[in-house]
Amino acid sequence: MKIGVLGTGMVGNAIASKLITLGHEVMMGSRTANNPKATAWASHAGTRARSGTFADTATFGEMVFNCTHGATSLAILNGTGPERLNGKIVIDVANVLPPDERRSESLGEQIQKAFPFAKVVKTLNTMNCDLMVNPQMLSASHTVFLSGNDDGAKKAVRGLLESFGWSDILDLGDISTARATEGYLPLWLAAWKALGTLAFNVKVVR
Amino acid sequence: MKIGVLGTGMVGNAIASKLITLGHEVMMGSRTANNPKATAWASHAGTRARSGTFADTATFGEMVFNCTHGATSLAILNGTGPERLNGKIVIDVANVLPPDERRSESLGEQIQKAFPFAKVVKTLNTMNCDLMVNPQMLSASHTVFLSGNDDGAKKAVRGLLESFGWSDILDLGDISTARATEGYLPLWLAAWKALGTLAFNVKVVR
Repeated sequence: MKIGVLGTGMVGNAIASKLITLGHEVMMGSRTANNPKATAWASHAGTRARSGTFADTATFGEMVFNCTHGATSLAILNGTGPERLNGKIVIDVANVLPPDERRSESLGEQIQKAFPFAKVVKTLNTMNCDLMVNPQMLSASHTVFLSGNDDGAKKAVRGLLESFGWSDILDLGDISTARATEGYLPLWLAAWKALGTLAFNVKVVR
Repeated sequence: MKIGVLGTGMVGNAIASKLITLGHEVMMGSRTANNPKATAWASHAGTRARSGTFADTATFGEMVFNCTHGATSLAILNGTGPERLNGKIVIDVANVLPPDERRSESLGEQIQKAFPFAKVVKTLNTMNCDLMVNPQMLSASHTVFLSGNDDGAKKAVRGLLESFGWSDILDLGDISTARATEGYLPLWLAAWKALGTLAFNVKVVR
């Protein structure tokens, strides 16, 4: 599948590289066509990898990951031209840091409201990026959450997560439940500080 | 030990009854000395159980559980006369519902600020009350969090939690980290709705 990854940071790199190893064609998007991080990634990641502007990347992807900083995501997505995302699955993995500046609505909801014809799925926003794409790093099973309004889109994202190695995927409901997982960020930060490692995640034991 | 339990709801009942089975002397506190729920609990719970006003209960307990509704906890604790809690461990298990009305400071921090000579420990506020006192209800290990400024108080509370059956007790740090566990409430509510059961909790897998 052709997948666009918006963002050139650690999260974008981890997601884009994993997608390449799974055989997808991937474009990494950034503000400019010749962003050094994006072009460096594309030149190392093989023939199925390329880079482009955010708008190029939104056009390229049948599915588009939002791996930009949460505080700037809406402006970046708006800059792609909203119609480029129409009908596409937008996988929003971003969090707004610091969490105290979060608005009452979640970023996932705000993106869905701004792009009513996109199918926004919030997921993977509750763990470090190495774990996002390699859940087997931890010895025991742990949980990833899904929020979104479109069941077909959530089914497709579930399939992609399974290809990443995830087995415990908990669908919380519509996109308003992104508020719940985005609100978990302070607990994630506190646990990181207490444990002294990013190699942890929660398992919903039931 | 003599332990006071403020609150006559499901949480207060679960905690007070568990403490009785563990051999403690327990007073359940409420607004009035002859509250029907508190007197009914005391009459069924055996000779080590009694009931009284919130102020009686704060005086009675060497350790005091706050099991009142989070939205009213501060007013109730203030009503006990702050000096009654001086030097005592106050175990705050309350949450403010609905979570959207939470203030930026956590209830745990607000209680510690209002009672600077009490040793406030926030814990057990991230799961249903049946699980609080019977963690073995679930087949696999799961986690309870601790937040508080006083290491001695946290050690004592850890011992009490172990007597409840808890083995994975994660100390997040000072009382400001109560913000992290109180902020988890929306995710707990969403998971409850998605799973259709209260018999769940998170395990921090690491």
